[in-house]
Amino acid sequence: MLEKNDRLAMETFCETLHPATVAETLTDSFSPEEIWYFLSSTSIEHQADIFPYFPVELQLELVTSGTGREHIAKLIEEMSSDDRADLLQRLPPPVTENLLRLVDEADRKDIAKLIQYPKNTAGALMTTDYAWLPANITVDEALDRLRLQAPDKETIYYVYIVDEQRRLLGVVSLRDLILASRRAIVSDLMETHVFYVRDTDDREQVAREFGEFDFIAMPVVDADNRLVGIITSDDVIDVVVEEATADAHRMGGVTPVDENYLEASFALIWRKRAVWLVLLFVAEMSTFTAMAHFDDAMKSITVLALFVPLCISIGGNSGSQASTLITRALALGQVTVSDWFRAFRHELLMGAALGATLGLIGAARTYFMTPGHVLNNPGGAPDTDITKLTMVIGLAVSAICLYGTLIGSMLPLLFRRIGIDPGVASGPFVATFVDVTGIVIYFSIAKLIFGPAIGPLE
Amino acid sequence: MLEKNDRLAMETFCETLHPATVAETLTDSFSPEEIWYFLSSTSIEHQADIFPYFPVELQLELVTSGTGREHIAKLIEEMSSDDRADLLQRLPPPVTENLLRLVDEADRKDIAKLIQYPKNTAGALMTTDYAWLPANITVDEALDRLRLQAPDKETIYYVYIVDEQRRLLGVVSLRDLILASRRAIVSDLMETHVFYVRDTDDREQVAREFGEFDFIAMPVVDADNRLVGIITSDDVIDVVVEEATADAHRMGGVTPVDENYLEASFALIWRKRAVWLVLLFVAEMSTFTAMAHFDDAMKSITVLALFVPLCISIGGNSGSQASTLITRALALGQVTVSDWFRAFRHELLMGAALGATLGLIGAARTYFMTPGHVLNNPGGAPDTDITKLTMVIGLAVSAICLYGTLIGSMLPLLFRRIGIDPGVASGPFVATFVDVTGIVIYFSIAKLIFGPAIGPLE
Repeated sequence: MLEKNDRLAMETFCETLHPATVAETLTDSFSPEEIWYFLSSTSIEHQADIFPYFPVELQLELVTSGTGREHIAKLIEEMSSDDRADLLQRLPPPVTENLLRLVDEADRKDIAKLIQYPKNTAGALMTTDYAWLPANITVDEALDRLRLQAPDKETIYYVYIVDEQRRLLGVVSLRDLILASRRAIVSDLMETHVFYVRDTDDREQVAREFGEFDFIAMPVVDADNRLVGIITSDDVIDVVVEEATADAHRMGGVTPVDENYLEASFALIWRKRAVWLVLLFVAEMSTFTAMAHFDDAMKSITVLALFVPLCISIGGNSGSQASTLITRALALGQVTVSDWFRAFRHELLMGAALGATLGLIGAARTYFMTPGHVLNNPGGAPDTDITKLTMVIGLAVSAICLYGTLIGSMLPLLFRRIGIDPGVASGPFVATFVDVTGIVIYFSIAKLIFGPAIGPLE
Repeated sequence: MLEKNDRLAMETFCETLHPATVAETLTDSFSPEEIWYFLSSTSIEHQADIFPYFPVELQLELVTSGTGREHIAKLIEEMSSDDRADLLQRLPPPVTENLLRLVDEADRKDIAKLIQYPKNTAGALMTTDYAWLPANITVDEALDRLRLQAPDKETIYYVYIVDEQRRLLGVVSLRDLILASRRAIVSDLMETHVFYVRDTDDREQVAREFGEFDFIAMPVVDADNRLVGIITSDDVIDVVVEEATADAHRMGGVTPVDENYLEASFALIWRKRAVWLVLLFVAEMSTFTAMAHFDDAMKSITVLALFVPLCISIGGNSGSQASTLITRALALGQVTVSDWFRAFRHELLMGAALGATLGLIGAARTYFMTPGHVLNNPGGAPDTDITKLTMVIGLAVSAICLYGTLIGSMLPLLFRRIGIDPGVASGPFVATFVDVTGIVIYFSIAKLIFGPAIGPLE
């Protein structure tokens, strides 16, 4: 189309396909200048529908390249209030200011209000394009008013009833309006038990309430109970997906990455990964100190060193399981910090049961499958006693499993309690934390069971 | 209320609060028999609204206790088609059959159709309660018909236009119907580019399309393009949350747990955790074999053993990061299996950059902070050369980091390719996989650099 400069085909393309499809196709094929040329074949309203579906990086590039500031200002006036607040928050402040000077007074005020909300609040998620009505009109008048409001509103399926101070009185669904007699009064139809969220509420909590109560949209009120916006289910789906990604990244030991995996900058991703790897690496260095402390044990009974990776890995794995289950249960609201003792008791039993299972397997493996030659000791000392070794491995595996399970389950609760995201108590974090203690537990049990066979350093 | 047997208060409670709130309050406070007594104060329609919000375990208990089969059959007739299909799928087959015999012919057919869909398909997620119209009627007629259909339908905000064979022709929103002239013909208003999913499509894919295109509802068609149901955004939010939980559990090395953390049965959770822990434990046993293979190195240069936990932990941590990023990018559709080479190249560079960072830190730590006494060797052999040791640690840490990153990124892609859920290539799984190779890499580098200082076994 672009080669033939077929403006009609471009227009048809922009206006008949879903805006998300148009944006995706243009992103994959064209430069910013070509995209603007393509978009100019259609109306500014259609452009405003398509624009928010471009990837964020491309949106920023499009704003600063290939088209005039007046055009961008018009586009911003036509975009839905939550989409444009999102965009303007990401632009460099001087660019935003320059653009806002060209935007309508009313739109400018609306934008200023929305971009002041912190990113993770209901206020930042909401749109101000909601349908509203006074309480004392008939259904017929209500439908007439909605016909006037509708073209600009993101959803008119719920209509909010407010008083003169914009305080929320009730809600009526479009469906109920249509089913009702045309002469009925709106206040008689409205549901007065309205679920709402505050503009300062955390967006994760909003998502949880959506999931629980099956809403299409939910009103947002400010501290004075005045209606300031609505949150729609499509935005909530985005939040749930973004939060799941952030949680997964934290659990994998990465600072959450918002950007598309294949498109994000190398330096950014390097930073987000290196910071955790270096931290974990430095913390893990204490395993060296712990190992050095038990140097005598390894020199007296050399086979002990061979079991170290096996024994300490148990702590990491059992801890990772427990921390994942608790972190997810916290995210879903199934467990709160005040349930810590129930969780502790549960994990104490579970850790003991899992530890017993693994301990038995570990003991059996040690007893039946340890090759004779590794039991030799240096300096003419007698061979290592296989029964004692079996006891050491069985007990150490059980104890480390129990310990890993308890640490893995309690760390996320502790973090939540002191205001750190519980996802930070991720698998790698817990594994590192437990490795050092695992070494201490293992060698302490060995010293206890082998007794004088473990001599002092030469 | 129950103590005073205040039926009116119970009725008001059931009818004014949100069904989810009613269900939650009753679940926390009462026995199944008391819940039925409480519910009997309100109409069967209200009971059907409240019932699906009870936890699944309680729903099953309620069906088999305290009330007659006729009552349950009535309740099932009133429940929305997706909720009741969910319930009946979980009941023991004889109970389901017994109940279905008492249910209306039409409802029975509808249920039979829905429960045959496998759990993860669009068909199992959809409801058959959608609003539909023929194409050749006026808006006025359309609104009249909707008034008749609406009370039973889960959503009437989108109305689907079908031909005589129920093939999907288009969609019109309630909002457009209200905005249009009353004499306009529906077929002139409808959008004919309809996004739909097939009843056999995977529900994760459905959730992705919802997220991408911002729908409230989406039609579902069968292999002959006949409309068979719709999927609404509230069900999609549930899917996204459930899938995020399942993914998180897999990443933490647990078979996904659907049940509430504090309420699930101990034996079930034990099984779901033990199976992975035992598998990982048995796999990790090869670290013993690897360590035994390098017994001579540890006996000749005893300080080498002390660095083992530190060196191999790098593989687990870097692998866990890479597998998390790739698994999540796969789930979001940002990466597909065919992108494997781009991902490989990306992770090759990233692994090298991260490895260089950690290698430098590791080398510095070894050179400056290794206490002199651990460098002693048994049998009068000379002390270990600190420069050589520094080189070994620096190189091993870099190499293991690169190796862990590559394995962690490629395993999820390989698993997806051969039809295993990529989340199975979780942190613990990758860590176990990489531990053995980490030992081999570490000691091979040590042998290379120390050369003849590492003698054969005595």
